[in-house]
Amino acid sequence: MAVKFELIKECKQTKARLGRLHTPHGIINTPVFMPVGTQATVKTMTPEELKDIGAEIILSNTYHLYLRPGSKLIREAGGLHKFMNWDRPILTDSGGFQVFSLGPLRKITEDGVEFRSHLDGSKHFMTPELATEVQMDLGSTIAMAFDECAPYPCTFEYAREALERTTRWAERCKKAHNRMDQALFGIVQGGMYRELREQSARELVELDFPGYAIGGLSVGEPKPLMYEVLDYTTPLLPADKPRYLMGVGSPDCIIEGVIRGVDMFDCVLPTRIARNGTAMTSGGKVVIRNAVYARDFTPLDHECDCYTCRNYSRAYIRHLFKAEEILALRLVTIHNLYFLLRLMEHLRKAIAEDCVPEFRKRFFEKYGYDGEEI
Amino acid sequence: MAVKFELIKECKQTKARLGRLHTPHGIINTPVFMPVGTQATVKTMTPEELKDIGAEIILSNTYHLYLRPGSKLIREAGGLHKFMNWDRPILTDSGGFQVFSLGPLRKITEDGVEFRSHLDGSKHFMTPELATEVQMDLGSTIAMAFDECAPYPCTFEYAREALERTTRWAERCKKAHNRMDQALFGIVQGGMYRELREQSARELVELDFPGYAIGGLSVGEPKPLMYEVLDYTTPLLPADKPRYLMGVGSPDCIIEGVIRGVDMFDCVLPTRIARNGTAMTSGGKVVIRNAVYARDFTPLDHECDCYTCRNYSRAYIRHLFKAEEILALRLVTIHNLYFLLRLMEHLRKAIAEDCVPEFRKRFFEKYGYDGEEI
Repeated sequence: MAVKFELIKECKQTKARLGRLHTPHGIINTPVFMPVGTQATVKTMTPEELKDIGAEIILSNTYHLYLRPGSKLIREAGGLHKFMNWDRPILTDSGGFQVFSLGPLRKITEDGVEFRSHLDGSKHFMTPELATEVQMDLGSTIAMAFDECAPYPCTFEYAREALERTTRWAERCKKAHNRMDQALFGIVQGGMYRELREQSARELVELDFPGYAIGGLSVGEPKPLMYEVLDYTTPLLPADKPRYLMGVGSPDCIIEGVIRGVDMFDCVLPTRIARNGTAMTSGGKVVIRNAVYARDFTPLDHECDCYTCRNYSRAYIRHLFKAEEILALRLVTIHNLYFLLRLMEHLRKAIAEDCVPEFRKRFFEKYGYDGEEI
Repeated sequence: MAVKFELIKECKQTKARLGRLHTPHGIINTPVFMPVGTQATVKTMTPEELKDIGAEIILSNTYHLYLRPGSKLIREAGGLHKFMNWDRPILTDSGGFQVFSLGPLRKITEDGVEFRSHLDGSKHFMTPELATEVQMDLGSTIAMAFDECAPYPCTFEYAREALERTTRWAERCKKAHNRMDQALFGIVQGGMYRELREQSARELVELDFPGYAIGGLSVGEPKPLMYEVLDYTTPLLPADKPRYLMGVGSPDCIIEGVIRGVDMFDCVLPTRIARNGTAMTSGGKVVIRNAVYARDFTPLDHECDCYTCRNYSRAYIRHLFKAEEILALRLVTIHNLYFLLRLMEHLRKAIAEDCVPEFRKRFFEKYGYDGEEI
């Protein structure tokens, strides 16, 4: 098997788990956050910088790389790892979420999805087999089965059809997949319906994947609803396989996900808001363009020891944003990713020391958590 | 004296000089190229990256920093070095060139220059005294006297008036300057007129500056004319003081400047064309967006051992440019600055080994130099 999950410890008070995911590209300590490198680069960062802040795995997007520069070109380059100079694990999504997000530009059939490129309008047909082939060409460490992500809200009937198609497609992906150095994960769907989540999990577990994602969450539903779905979905998944909650990356959702037994997370949030000038800090968010920071010669986060906080003031970073300098985007991206990766480290420590609820309480008090997205 | 120039060796066949400029922020080996950090950042780079590629001094622009974030704010921050996290020497220009480039937005009088900000249209009055005060607030290692740079072409009479005003302003700058840890350089003007360059140099040398810039070149004149002006201007300057040719940074002009006795250069060229996707390489320029590089898995420059060339292919860098990724700008900027800084290193070695003409010939043959700007 390409990847092997080692469950080290389960939390005494919550469902949180401490683990290690062994892969051909190295070990990942879980729970883990995966920075997103959509187009074969985590925006503004070098691979060395990602390693410096402790990133153990990154995510890249199949849909984008398939369209540009093309997965065959990346295969010629020696695979995605070599192409982008990153030798640690990479997870590629299946392209499903991106294709379904295209809205009127796509058409779903049993065979696959016809869509038009957001780049040049060209027509493409993505199937479970092609999504698998593309990911094999990329040579990612973990590939995802091609799934249909139902929108929120949607009817029971729609959600059922989408999950059943997702199961049939998962089977086709598994059949098409033949890279022994790459793991293929299945994706549980079922919308916000417990009965459907149970059906989806049962069908996918039967197919015996080395890992399972929980898809179709963080698609616009209220957070309490997401937590409720997680509450009943994670127990449906085998304890000896990693669980990946797709597209979730705000500090509060990560913590709530971890205590419900999730092991892996990814999200563009920390890098996207960084480029917007919003820093995640131990005291809550800091919108660095605000005039109040013009003469603030203290670091972004006084509790942080990242490169940015060790060397630059809020006043300087604000100046860089006002002056539209690229270093601005770099410095806040480094800080935000560092902040989330440290959060994961603290969570792992809290699981090891059986103090997850206390950690959660302390974090939310300091962070000024009010139930809203950062 | 804040800076001291040590003339190590003069070339046997040309006027090239090998030197060391001792400053409160460290030693600079000359001839030197100074990367430009207009807004208190060398675009896309961190200070550590600049050190890694061997930058010993950078330039920053008084006009821009005066307007944003303001020199008083930078003084409050502890000076420009601390503000931007760079502890090696910084040279600040006087703002004269930028102000005169504003065209209809400025009005010159004997007292100074009235101008409108390119940012918000606000009215300002820059004088020799204010330009000096601003640079003292910034705390740069080397400050420049506020000068009037005549355009090209311009009449003898215009050039004479500009140079005479530049001398009077240089005197006022000297009188206003009182930071003992900062050197103030004078700027020789005089357009393309030998008689006027002689007058300017004579008057400025009389004021006894610790270094001299040659201004008013690289303003649109043909290169042979610039070389001719350098031919007769550098011998007018004291041998024991550094000579700085402002705004020059193409490989050919640097080499021609060095063999005419210039010690210091600065230019936005390498960083600007980098962000445009043009790499300076040992084989000439590489326009990386070109389709021919789509499947070129070799480095930008096969003779280069910079970070970019050690780790990335032309195909990857082209992809990053097409995908509008910031890492693209970073990688080519690193390469171009490294290329120029290595050129300076090779020139210093050639001076030490008395083989400057041979080096020049070899470089131009390989580089495919054809008299055009890269």
